[in-house]
Amino acid sequence: MKLYDYAASANCYKVRLLLAQLERPYVRVPVDIFAGDTLTDEYAAKNPARATPVLELENGALLTESNAILFYLAQGTPFLPAGPLDLAQVVRWLVFEQTDVMMSVGGLRFRLLTGRITRDHPDAVRRREGALQALGLLDLHLREREFLVADGYSIADIAVYAYTHVAREAGLELERFPAVQSWLERAEEQPRYMNDLEPYPENARPGAGRSTYD
Amino acid sequence: MKLYDYAASANCYKVRLLLAQLERPYVRVPVDIFAGDTLTDEYAAKNPARATPVLELENGALLTESNAILFYLAQGTPFLPAGPLDLAQVVRWLVFEQTDVMMSVGGLRFRLLTGRITRDHPDAVRRREGALQALGLLDLHLREREFLVADGYSIADIAVYAYTHVAREAGLELERFPAVQSWLERAEEQPRYMNDLEPYPENARPGAGRSTYD
Repeated sequence: MKLYDYAASANCYKVRLLLAQLERPYVRVPVDIFAGDTLTDEYAAKNPARATPVLELENGALLTESNAILFYLAQGTPFLPAGPLDLAQVVRWLVFEQTDVMMSVGGLRFRLLTGRITRDHPDAVRRREGALQALGLLDLHLREREFLVADGYSIADIAVYAYTHVAREAGLELERFPAVQSWLERAEEQPRYMNDLEPYPENARPGAGRSTYD
Repeated sequence: MKLYDYAASANCYKVRLLLAQLERPYVRVPVDIFAGDTLTDEYAAKNPARATPVLELENGALLTESNAILFYLAQGTPFLPAGPLDLAQVVRWLVFEQTDVMMSVGGLRFRLLTGRITRDHPDAVRRREGALQALGLLDLHLREREFLVADGYSIADIAVYAYTHVAREAGLELERFPAVQSWLERAEEQPRYMNDLEPYPENARPGAGRSTYD
């Protein structure tokens, strides 16, 4: 199994975290997004959307979308609850994470950290508003629960953890969301938890590299 | 089973379509978004995100996110493939639909049809760009396939069909995507296909109603 992977992407980190917690061996293929690695024809053949991560199975089958990869790997393990409603609730959070958390928290963090926009830019204001709303909804949900679905740590938690745990780097005050903070700590207490999310490198700054973000 | 439902929402229509194709009885509870129906405390107790649709099960359990509702209802039916990789591919398209199709095609259509923005507004230009990219990715995928996953009609098709079949109402030229057009026709040839998506009513115009969109 090969993971086409960018070290500074939290979408990639979430897959690395699950693989570590599952103790599954894999070959990590580094993709330097800002050196143009996703702009090649070879990469488009792996993923026409030119995004990371991509999972390549031993039979050559390809799977894109970080949360679909989590879902694939978690089947038949304790990281995916078995009941039909619980399973659907996991799908709910996998969708919510990409629409409400990744786009706002992750998108804001990326743009601020790499110097694309400053906090007073209209796009930053809009993403901040979306991020605070998403964190508010998470906080409300987690006030009465230990984990997002079915009282157990699952890929729903792993997916949402990925960008939420670095929300402060997007200038978001996590202190306003105490239930989220406690849940982040519980996620970090899970067996085989690890964090190898790297900071954005120098070539992620606008104009410094070649990528779909330029 | 109760479906809290807005007649002019394609996110709601996709659930109605699956329920019709499954021939499952349910009680439809109309939610008039622009009359303020989602702004009440009662509605927030059903869905703190104040969105439609919401599925309420016979035991009172609540499920939000249209694609999670599709996933719940499709389990154990031919609308959800059984293999682990196919299942993950369905999740892939359920996520893609919300991040890449609904936000761009659906968001653009809503804003244009209700007179919120015109085609030359920067937000319209940005969403149009995203929509054309999403349609291009769909077209590429469907050039070699009858349906999105595993050669059979599934909830992946139902989810993506919902906003794609009205892409022209967002000013998007579907003629540029012939594989998408053929696939839309195949979806419409499925047993028990029906289309009851309603046009936006007068109170959806800006200032005419009270909703989270105002």
